[in-house]
Amino acid sequence: MDTRNRPEEPEIKPMLDEIFCPQGVAVVGASPLNLSFAELVVHSLKEAKFPAVFPVNPKYKEVLGLPCYPSLTDIPGAVDHVIVSIPAESVLKLLDDCTAKRVKSVHFFTAGFGETGDAGKEELERAMLAKAKAGGFRIIGPNCVGLYVPKSRLVNSLNSSLEPGPIAFISQSGGHAQDLPDRSRARGLQFSKVVSYGNALDVNESELLDYFSRDSETEIIAAYIEGVKDGKRFMRAMAETAIQKPVVIYKGGRTEAGRRATYGHTASLTSSVAIFDALCRQVKAIQVNDLDEMIDVLIALRFIRPLPRDAKAALMGAGGGPSVLASDEMEKEGLRLPCLSPAVQTELKQSFPVAGSIFINPLDTLNLIVPEAISTAMQVFGRVPGIHMLIYHLGFHPLSNWGWGRLSLENFVNPAIGVMKEAQRKAGKPVLLALRPPQGLEGMAEFLAAQQAFVKAGFPVFYSMRQLARAMVRVIAWNKSCPDSSDPLKK
Amino acid sequence: MDTRNRPEEPEIKPMLDEIFCPQGVAVVGASPLNLSFAELVVHSLKEAKFPAVFPVNPKYKEVLGLPCYPSLTDIPGAVDHVIVSIPAESVLKLLDDCTAKRVKSVHFFTAGFGETGDAGKEELERAMLAKAKAGGFRIIGPNCVGLYVPKSRLVNSLNSSLEPGPIAFISQSGGHAQDLPDRSRARGLQFSKVVSYGNALDVNESELLDYFSRDSETEIIAAYIEGVKDGKRFMRAMAETAIQKPVVIYKGGRTEAGRRATYGHTASLTSSVAIFDALCRQVKAIQVNDLDEMIDVLIALRFIRPLPRDAKAALMGAGGGPSVLASDEMEKEGLRLPCLSPAVQTELKQSFPVAGSIFINPLDTLNLIVPEAISTAMQVFGRVPGIHMLIYHLGFHPLSNWGWGRLSLENFVNPAIGVMKEAQRKAGKPVLLALRPPQGLEGMAEFLAAQQAFVKAGFPVFYSMRQLARAMVRVIAWNKSCPDSSDPLKK
Repeated sequence: MDTRNRPEEPEIKPMLDEIFCPQGVAVVGASPLNLSFAELVVHSLKEAKFPAVFPVNPKYKEVLGLPCYPSLTDIPGAVDHVIVSIPAESVLKLLDDCTAKRVKSVHFFTAGFGETGDAGKEELERAMLAKAKAGGFRIIGPNCVGLYVPKSRLVNSLNSSLEPGPIAFISQSGGHAQDLPDRSRARGLQFSKVVSYGNALDVNESELLDYFSRDSETEIIAAYIEGVKDGKRFMRAMAETAIQKPVVIYKGGRTEAGRRATYGHTASLTSSVAIFDALCRQVKAIQVNDLDEMIDVLIALRFIRPLPRDAKAALMGAGGGPSVLASDEMEKEGLRLPCLSPAVQTELKQSFPVAGSIFINPLDTLNLIVPEAISTAMQVFGRVPGIHMLIYHLGFHPLSNWGWGRLSLENFVNPAIGVMKEAQRKAGKPVLLALRPPQGLEGMAEFLAAQQAFVKAGFPVFYSMRQLARAMVRVIAWNKSCPDSSDPLKK
Repeated sequence: MDTRNRPEEPEIKPMLDEIFCPQGVAVVGASPLNLSFAELVVHSLKEAKFPAVFPVNPKYKEVLGLPCYPSLTDIPGAVDHVIVSIPAESVLKLLDDCTAKRVKSVHFFTAGFGETGDAGKEELERAMLAKAKAGGFRIIGPNCVGLYVPKSRLVNSLNSSLEPGPIAFISQSGGHAQDLPDRSRARGLQFSKVVSYGNALDVNESELLDYFSRDSETEIIAAYIEGVKDGKRFMRAMAETAIQKPVVIYKGGRTEAGRRATYGHTASLTSSVAIFDALCRQVKAIQVNDLDEMIDVLIALRFIRPLPRDAKAALMGAGGGPSVLASDEMEKEGLRLPCLSPAVQTELKQSFPVAGSIFINPLDTLNLIVPEAISTAMQVFGRVPGIHMLIYHLGFHPLSNWGWGRLSLENFVNPAIGVMKEAQRKAGKPVLLALRPPQGLEGMAEFLAAQQAFVKAGFPVFYSMRQLARAMVRVIAWNKSCPDSSDPLKK
């Protein structure tokens, strides 16, 4: 995985591998002011017990209890990685210090470069790149939040998980790079590496795709891309990556206003949406429309085994209105609910009260919050040929906690996990959960506890039937298109 | 508003008006068991301090501290409204008691009638209807949760608001009838009357539309309909209602599986979706795809003044990635973000730091969580001709509460409300808010407090830019199509 000797980039520069496991990090522009990214990073690295953090700022002797150094070269220990949050005007001098200190990588949080549209700033970017190449170090950004590598305790946000997982995320937006792990953690997503790369002055989307296609710690690749600097190289990187690992991609700037925003954001001249879409179709990347959809697709790829190649499903849950809505959502998005044969309907009618129930797939009966009833329903559906997944839906609305008995871990969640695992094993069909969260504090504790238990047991949890269906349609289409008949995630 | 003497229904029967203000309610089938709808209703009516609640059940002497009567005719006081939760087999005898007791309305929670597909049950429904007509009372349902009338303290769910508002909701689903008020309360929706009417044996969607078109307490009508029994009558009711008040409608059973589910749910033979859609277009009803979209459209109709007739908007908020996403969401759904002139861009650049900002609509700068900056931005956008609404977006993610200063009422929310009200007044353009809630408990208290304050100040709050845009596109199209050039909600 040596990127040094690729024909198009003959310069000597550190491999990305080296960048992802620094031992010493300097934070230049660190301050004790409670309004800065630099303080967030120092705080977060301390909290994550990163081995050696060195704040740098001539104005302070100490930042958050750590000794603060006037300049990079004053730091007594070794520094591999430098995080920079100082004005654009001061960066060239700093890069000379980086060369002297023999660092491997410099991440610029600092914005105000090419994305401002100022010609002088574009020249400054070229000078920075020249210094990095001469000094033998890599630049991440500028205008981004840099690296999050759980295994190395290298974090850029508070309360970050230090447990690594099989997903890599490359993001041109710093906000999304922090949001994706944050918003998906409760649903069980963990990351190998997250790279926010902003204006892509040096490290860019194509090199990152190449890297992650070969990274043994990464099984699934997610990408948020606003614009691509070298279209041909990107096409090659996408094609080579997507045949090895699923690539889930969210292209920012699909509309006129979105394109204007990406230019102002990361100086991205976004390519034609039609060309981008055609490329994704051709290489079999999975395109999504926003961050939440990206999380849903990642959940499906990560937790559903076997991953279906067919859209036919069984739907079960309590409530007539919600069952009608869920059925409509599923079929509108492209999943299918096959009608049950009269024999199967009769079998279900013998197990459930007829009044107030629906028996024709969807199955709706109030009993479906009782684990034994869930077990019966899943075993019946599990035996129906042509049904490829078992979907259970449940709303955590305040009312649920009243007349239907509390949805506690003891009464409901733990026994339900048992019967669902058993049904999944017996039928060889995956169980998927749509758990609708409450909209306020009431019921939220019960919801979060249930979610945690289901996630810990390995179940995919979605927050609505629409989200579940939208993600599954994409993942099934991708899975069907994969040449290997075996599950590409199980190679 | 006398429904007695309409030509097609010559029988003497109580007007709906009388049904909505009962003084005495009997709950037949009440039990102290913590698993029943009947107990939920007794509990809820007690909690709401409804004047006279009479549990009826020969098995008990007392239910939840109230005397329980062996039969309806044993009740000493007057009874207007009867809520029934006993098996279908026992209802004919009960209806004789209702006649003897001279009640005005009977609501059947009880299911297991026509929707089971059993011919005997359909005959039972006809016998029930005959008894109601002979006895001079109305039937609501069967197979529904009946009435919620805040002004009359008539509730069917716990913690129901007793504050009336201008929205009526008629729902064939009991679950949706309870969910809509529950899920929208924090965003400020209040209701005149909510009617869950299930199988529509007697009181049906058309009579309810007629009624609400003339109800002085109702300004906006929402409807969840699975199937229509009398198509011609429904067309007439829709046409006559929708020229007077906005009608927001969600048709359940749009897909094959959804249609099967509506039949099993409320015995609805759903009409052709194409015909239904054409009718809605013709009469200018606002169609939505689910309950959350219904809430969003109701929020827009209820709180946005002036209601725009044009899709051009200004978007402002902090964060590059979120701004790109929000711009794409808006334009994909059909709103427009006009590009700002160089002069306006220069004006904005003089007020905000250039590094890390986007100035071309969307406006993105980290300062936009400071009330003074919001004020400046809104005043600049307020003066731009051709922009018809001012949209502010903000994510309540855990990170927001750190480096950017806590989004407290004192520091942020209350001053922001002041500057937004001022901008709205000066520009004569409405301010809309997209506040993205956190996904767990962290930040939820701050989010709920902020939401409450913004709602109390009269602002429309949406939970994502996509939801905001989707609702606005529908409402703007409806508003443009209204013949009267004045705001139809301000007549």
